[in-house]
Amino acid sequence: MKRQDGRQPDQLRPIEITPGFIKYPEGSALICCGDTKVICNATVEEEVPPFRKGSGKGWVTAEYAMLPRATNARSRRDISKLKLNGRSAEIQRLIGRALRAAVDMKALGERTITVDCDVIQADGGTRCASITGGFAALALALDQLRRQGIFDKLPLTGCVAAVSCGIVEGRPLLDLCYAEDSAAQVDFNFVMDDQSRVIEAQGTGEGRPFAKAELDALYALAEPAIRRLIEIQKQTLGGLLG
Amino acid sequence: MKRQDGRQPDQLRPIEITPGFIKYPEGSALICCGDTKVICNATVEEEVPPFRKGSGKGWVTAEYAMLPRATNARSRRDISKLKLNGRSAEIQRLIGRALRAAVDMKALGERTITVDCDVIQADGGTRCASITGGFAALALALDQLRRQGIFDKLPLTGCVAAVSCGIVEGRPLLDLCYAEDSAAQVDFNFVMDDQSRVIEAQGTGEGRPFAKAELDALYALAEPAIRRLIEIQKQTLGGLLG
Amino acid sequence: MKRQDGRQPDQLRPIEITPGFIKYPEGSALICCGDTKVICNATVEEEVPPFRKGSGKGWVTAEYAMLPRATNARSRRDISKLKLNGRSAEIQRLIGRALRAAVDMKALGERTITVDCDVIQADGGTRCASITGGFAALALALDQLRRQGIFDKLPLTGCVAAVSCGIVEGRPLLDLCYAEDSAAQVDFNFVMDDQSRVIEAQGTGEGRPFAKAELDALYALAEPAIRRLIEIQKQTLGGLLG
Amino acid sequence: MKRQDGRQPDQLRPIEITPGFIKYPEGSALICCGDTKVICNATVEEEVPPFRKGSGKGWVTAEYAMLPRATNARSRRDISKLKLNGRSAEIQRLIGRALRAAVDMKALGERTITVDCDVIQADGGTRCASITGGFAALALALDQLRRQGIFDKLPLTGCVAAVSCGIVEGRPLLDLCYAEDSAAQVDFNFVMDDQSRVIEAQGTGEGRPFAKAELDALYALAEPAIRRLIEIQKQTLGGLLG
Amino acid sequence: MKRQDGRQPDQLRPIEITPGFIKYPEGSALICCGDTKVICNATVEEEVPPFRKGSGKGWVTAEYAMLPRATNARSRRDISKLKLNGRSAEIQRLIGRALRAAVDMKALGERTITVDCDVIQADGGTRCASITGGFAALALALDQLRRQGIFDKLPLTGCVAAVSCGIVEGRPLLDLCYAEDSAAQVDFNFVMDDQSRVIEAQGTGEGRPFAKAELDALYALAEPAIRRLIEIQKQTLGGLLG
Amino acid sequence: MKRQDGRQPDQLRPIEITPGFIKYPEGSALICCGDTKVICNATVEEEVPPFRKGSGKGWVTAEYAMLPRATNARSRRDISKLKLNGRSAEIQRLIGRALRAAVDMKALGERTITVDCDVIQADGGTRCASITGGFAALALALDQLRRQGIFDKLPLTGCVAAVSCGIVEGRPLLDLCYAEDSAAQVDFNFVMDDQSRVIEAQGTGEGRPFAKAELDALYALAEPAIRRLIEIQKQTLGGLLG
Repeated sequence: MKRQDGRQPDQLRPIEITPGFIKYPEGSALICCGDTKVICNATVEEEVPPFRKGSGKGWVTAEYAMLPRATNARSRRDISKLKLNGRSAEIQRLIGRALRAAVDMKALGERTITVDCDVIQADGGTRCASITGGFAALALALDQLRRQGIFDKLPLTGCVAAVSCGIVEGRPLLDLCYAEDSAAQVDFNFVMDDQSRVIEAQGTGEGRPFAKAELDALYALAEPAIRRLIEIQKQTLGGLLG
Repeated sequence: MKRQDGRQPDQLRPIEITPGFIKYPEGSALICCGDTKVICNATVEEEVPPFRKGSGKGWVTAEYAMLPRATNARSRRDISKLKLNGRSAEIQRLIGRALRAAVDMKALGERTITVDCDVIQADGGTRCASITGGFAALALALDQLRRQGIFDKLPLTGCVAAVSCGIVEGRPLLDLCYAEDSAAQVDFNFVMDDQSRVIEAQGTGEGRPFAKAELDALYALAEPAIRRLIEIQKQTLGGLLG
Repeated sequence: MKRQDGRQPDQLRPIEITPGFIKYPEGSALICCGDTKVICNATVEEEVPPFRKGSGKGWVTAEYAMLPRATNARSRRDISKLKLNGRSAEIQRLIGRALRAAVDMKALGERTITVDCDVIQADGGTRCASITGGFAALALALDQLRRQGIFDKLPLTGCVAAVSCGIVEGRPLLDLCYAEDSAAQVDFNFVMDDQSRVIEAQGTGEGRPFAKAELDALYALAEPAIRRLIEIQKQTLGGLLG
Repeated sequence: MKRQDGRQPDQLRPIEITPGFIKYPEGSALICCGDTKVICNATVEEEVPPFRKGSGKGWVTAEYAMLPRATNARSRRDISKLKLNGRSAEIQRLIGRALRAAVDMKALGERTITVDCDVIQADGGTRCASITGGFAALALALDQLRRQGIFDKLPLTGCVAAVSCGIVEGRPLLDLCYAEDSAAQVDFNFVMDDQSRVIEAQGTGEGRPFAKAELDALYALAEPAIRRLIEIQKQTLGGLLG
Repeated sequence: MKRQDGRQPDQLRPIEITPGFIKYPEGSALICCGDTKVICNATVEEEVPPFRKGSGKGWVTAEYAMLPRATNARSRRDISKLKLNGRSAEIQRLIGRALRAAVDMKALGERTITVDCDVIQADGGTRCASITGGFAALALALDQLRRQGIFDKLPLTGCVAAVSCGIVEGRPLLDLCYAEDSAAQVDFNFVMDDQSRVIEAQGTGEGRPFAKAELDALYALAEPAIRRLIEIQKQTLGGLLG
Repeated sequence: MKRQDGRQPDQLRPIEITPGFIKYPEGSALICCGDTKVICNATVEEEVPPFRKGSGKGWVTAEYAMLPRATNARSRRDISKLKLNGRSAEIQRLIGRALRAAVDMKALGERTITVDCDVIQADGGTRCASITGGFAALALALDQLRRQGIFDKLPLTGCVAAVSCGIVEGRPLLDLCYAEDSAAQVDFNFVMDDQSRVIEAQGTGEGRPFAKAELDALYALAEPAIRRLIEIQKQTLGGLLG
C-alpha cells in the first residue's frame, strides 16, 4: 500500500534549503520540505535578556508564525485578535529549546540570536521544518560573526534537525504531509543531533493511546531520517558545518 | 545516594486528592503531590465550540494558571502584562489533549467540560499534577451528569494520570521536585491511561541530549508510577472509576 | 425572623485565619468567612514605584482576583478577555487604600509590599475578607522583616479589618452571605482600625436610596464586628499584633 | 480662615450646566463646577445587554475618561497603554450605579442609555460633576424619547446629584478643588436624590482614619449642597424635571 | 446651484480659534470650523524619543481621537476594543508630519511637543481642523518657552494650515461638511505653509478615479483658502506669528 | 548624474510578478520590484461585513505586514507589542481603497475578498508593490470565481497599479529604492488605473515643502510608469485582463 504521494513509509519528502534567501538577516534560509515552505531568518543582537546579563553567556530564541493563507483556510492574524496563537506559542518554545541545545552559550558570548520562522506555505511538519531550517539560518549567522573575527570556530556543539512521524491507519509513517497528519492516530516529533541523540521528543495519541513498542517503531523511522537531514544541511551550507 | 527528601529514585511524593474541595463546580478536587498543590475545577456547559456544533459530540478543554506567589519569586499576573504566559499556553494545551484522550465525546454529547487547573503552590511537576487532579475533577463532573440521568455510565474510555521524571546527575529519578527539576539534564513528562498506554510523552534534553536508552529508562520509571496514581484516583473517588 | 443560616442580625459568620497557608510568600494567610475563602499572600520587594523613589518611604499595594469557579457560574479569566474585570479593579484599589492606612511608610523604608488576594470560593463579602486576611498576611510579612532585623517593631499604626453589612427586607444585617447580598436593598462596607476609626466607608443604595438614619444603623452593626475581627486577627497571629 | 478661592467652608463653586452642548447626542450637557469641566453625552440604543434581554427592563451605564491634558501633567491615553485606567474603571462604575438609581427601568423599556462623561478640564470633583451633569444629559435624552411618544412622563424616580467634601487641616470643607483635595485628610463623595436620601456614600481616610462624628459633619455639609445642585439642574433643564 | 448651507463653492465655513481654551496645557486652542470642533492641546516635555537622544534636535508628535458622540452614531472607545482605530492612526500620523514640517528642530532643542487633537463634535474636515488648530496650540506652547527665555524667537520655519476639498456631483467644492463629504466622488486634503508650498497632499477617488485636471482644480480651491486660514491663525494669536 | 543602481530618473526597477506563488489562496502572486518582495494572497469568503449585509454588494479589504527581518534591523512583531504598527495601519487602508476602486461591487455580489500583502524583503516602495501585486492576486481570485461560473466576466472596472516617486537632491526620480527614499526631500505615491486616472495621490514634503510645479513633475514621471506596470500585469496574467 503506497502513500498518497507515492512515498515509501520511511521516505522523506524532497528537502531543499536555500541559504541567503532574504538579503538583510545575518543568517537566512528558505527550507522546503515537500510543499511546506518556511523562511528562517537569524538576527544577531549585541545584548542578552536580563536573566543573562553579566553571565558571559549568550542566548538563542525563536519566533514562529504563519502567513494567513499558508493554509487552506485563511486564519486571522494574531494582532487582529490581540493574542498570540496558542499553537504558535507552543511551537516557538520548542524551536527555541531545540536550537539552544546546539549552541555553546559561553563561546557565543553575551549576544542574542533570534531565529524567526515564518511559514509561507504549510503542508504538515512546519515545526520540524522550522527547526531544520532555523538551524541552517543560525549557523549562517554564526558564520558571519566568525568571519568578523568574533570567534575562530562556530560556537556549536553539534547539528540539529527534526522530523515528524506518526501512525496512520496502523502504519508508522515518516514525515507526514498535512493530509496524513490529519488522519494520524499518533503523532510524534523528534529533534536530534548529529550523533543521533535526542534533544526533544514529543508524541501525542491524538486518535488513540499508543504502546511503548509503537514509540520505538517511530523512533526507528526518525533516527536515520534526521541523519539524512543533517547531511543535507551540511551539503547546503558548503562546508560550514564540517 | 539518597534524594534530598530521602525518597528512592522510583518513589512518588505523597499524593493526596481531596474531592469536592470547592463547593460550586460540577467537579472539584485539590491535588497535593508533595508541596505542589493544584485546585482542579471542572465546569459543564451545555454548548460546544463552533467547530463541534451539530456534530453530536462534546468537547473537553483546560486552562492552567499559577497564583503569583505559587513560586518563590512573585510573577506578575498575565492580565497586567496582557499576555498569556507562553509556558501556561503550552501546558494548558497539553492538559486539554490528555483529558480529551480519556473521554468518549459521542457519549458525552454536545456539551463542553472546562477543567481549570490553578496552581496555588508549585514545587515541581505542576503540569502532571494538573492532569492527574484534573482527571479526578472531570470524572466528578461526569458523575454529576450521570446522577442527573444524562447517561448511565461515565463516558470515559479509561483513566488518565501523568508523572514527571528526569535525569539528575546521571541518575533517572521519578517525580522531580523543583530543586531536582532545576538541576535535571533531561526532563520527561509521561501521560498514560490505565492500560499503560501512552497518551502523551514529552522529553527535553535541557542540559544535554540524551540516548534512546535513557528514554527507555525513564519510561520504565514512569509506567508503574502512573499505575499507582490511577489506583489513588480510584480509591479517592469512591468507586466512581470502578 | 431568623436569617437563612440561623444567624442573628448582628452575628458574624465563623471566621478562620490560617497563617502560613502557602509556604513561599513572606506573609501568607487563608481566611475563611463562612464559605468565602481567600488566599492572601504578601510579597516584599526591595524597590518602590517611581513616584516614591528617593522619598525614604515604602509602598503597599494589592491585587484581587477570583478563580473562574469561585462562584456558581464560571467566569472567563481576565486574560482571555484581555481586560481586568472592572469590579476587580475597583476592589483592589479599595484593598490597597485600606492596607496603606495601617502602615507607617517611613518606618517601612523604601520597599514595596504587594498583597495578592485570590478568592478561591466566593459566598459574599470577598472584598472585606480580603482586607481582613490581607492585613494578616501583611503583618506576617512585616514580622519576617522584623526578624531579619530591618526594624525593631512592626511599622504599623494599628490593625485593620473590614465587614460588610446591608439592609435586607428592611432589616439591617451584618456580614451578608451571597444570597443575602443579592437581595440587599442597601449594601455597605466598612473598613476600620482597632480604635474604631473609619478608614473607608462605602455604601450603595442598590435597590433604593437610604436615609442617614439607616447609615447610622449599619455603622452600629459594623463597629463592634470589626473590633471582634481584629481580636481574631490578634489571636491568630500569636502576639504579633500585641 | 478663608479657603484659597475665598469660599466659605459650606460654599459650592460656581456651577453652570449648558444643555445641548454637543449637537448629535440624544442628551448633552457641559457641566462646569469652578474650573472642572465635563462634557456629558447620553446615547440611546434600542437594545439591552444580554442579562436584560426579554426582561422588559432597560439599562443605564456610564463611561468616564479624561483628555490627556485635562490635568497639569499630561497622562498617556488608555489605548496607548492598552489598559483602562483603574481610577476611571472605579469612577465609571460609580456613575453608572448613581444614574441607574434614578431610573424606572420598567418604564424605560428594553433600551440602553449610555452616558459618556469626558473631563476636558479637571480641578477636583470630576466624579461628582460627572454624576450631576450626567443626570442632566440623561434627563434630556429621556425627554427626547418622551417627545417621540415613547412614554408620557420621564421614567425617573427622582433627581440625582453628587458633591465631594473632605477634611482639610481639621476643617470640614464642601466641594474641594484640586489643591484642597490633594491636602485632604479625609475625602468623601455623596450621591443623593431630591429627597435627601443617599444613593451612594464613599469616604476614605487618605491621611488618617476618621471618627463617626466627622462622617456626620461631612454629611451635614453635603446634604444641603446636593439640594442646591438639584435646584440648578431643574432651573437649567427648563421645567423638564418639574 | 447653492450648497446646502448656502456657501459658495470656494467659501470656507466660519472659522473660530479660541486660544487658551484649556488652562493647564502649555498651548491650548479650540478650533471651530462650522460645526466641527476640536480641542487642541500642546504639551512640552523635556525629553525626546530614543532615536533623537543626543542629536540636539527636538521632536513634535500628535495624537488624534474623537469623543464617542462626536458623531451621529456613538462609536465605542478604542480602549473598549483594545485597538487604536485605524482611521485615527492614519490621521494622527498625518497631523504629526504636518506640524513637524513647520518646526526648526535644532532651534527647539531636545524637547518633545505632543499635540493632542480631541474632536468633540465632527461635521467633516476634522483632520484639517486638527492641523490648523494644532498649529495654533503648538505656536502658543513655543511662545511659552520663548517667554521662559529658552529661545528668542519661535523655532518655526513658517505657518501651517490645512483644508479639505472634493468633487461633489461633478463640482469642485471647498471645505466639505459631513453631508458633502459623504457624497463626494473625490476627496482631497491639502496641508500648506504660508508661502503656498505644499506640505502634504492626499487625494482619493472614493467614488470614481479622477483626472489630473481635477487635481489641479482642487489645488486652485485649496491654495487661497489656506492663505486665509493662516491669516486667521495670525489674527487670533495676537502677533505671535508676525 | 546617475542613480546609485545606474537607472535613469524615469526608469522603473526590474519588475517580476509570479502568479500562483502560494498554492492555497484563491489568488496568489509574488511581486518583486528590484529587491522589494511582497507575497500577495487573495482570499474569497462568502460573506460580507455587517455594513454590507443585504446590500447585494461585495467588499474588498487588505492587510499589510512585514516579516521582522524584511528590513536591515529586526522589528518586533506587532503581536509582541500588542499593537498594530501605525505605519502598517495607514498602508493597509491605502491598499484597500486602491483595490476597491477597481472592483464592481454589485457584480462581485455579497462576498469579501481579503488581500494579504506580506513583505518578505523591503527595499523601498513596499506599499506600491503591494497594490500592484495585490491587484494581480485579486484578479486571479476573481478569475477562479469566474471559472466556477459565478460570473461571466471579471467584475473589474479597470486595472490598478501604483508607483512611488520623489525629489532627491532636487531631482525628480521614479520608483525610489530604500536608500533614495531615506534621502528624499519629497515623497509621492500615485495609484492609477489603466486610463491614467488617479485613484489615490499622496505626497509629503518630508524634508521641505514643495511647489505645485514639483507635484506636476512627479505626476509626469508616475503616469507613464503606471501604464508600464499595468502592461506587465496584463502580460503576466496571461490574457486575464484583456
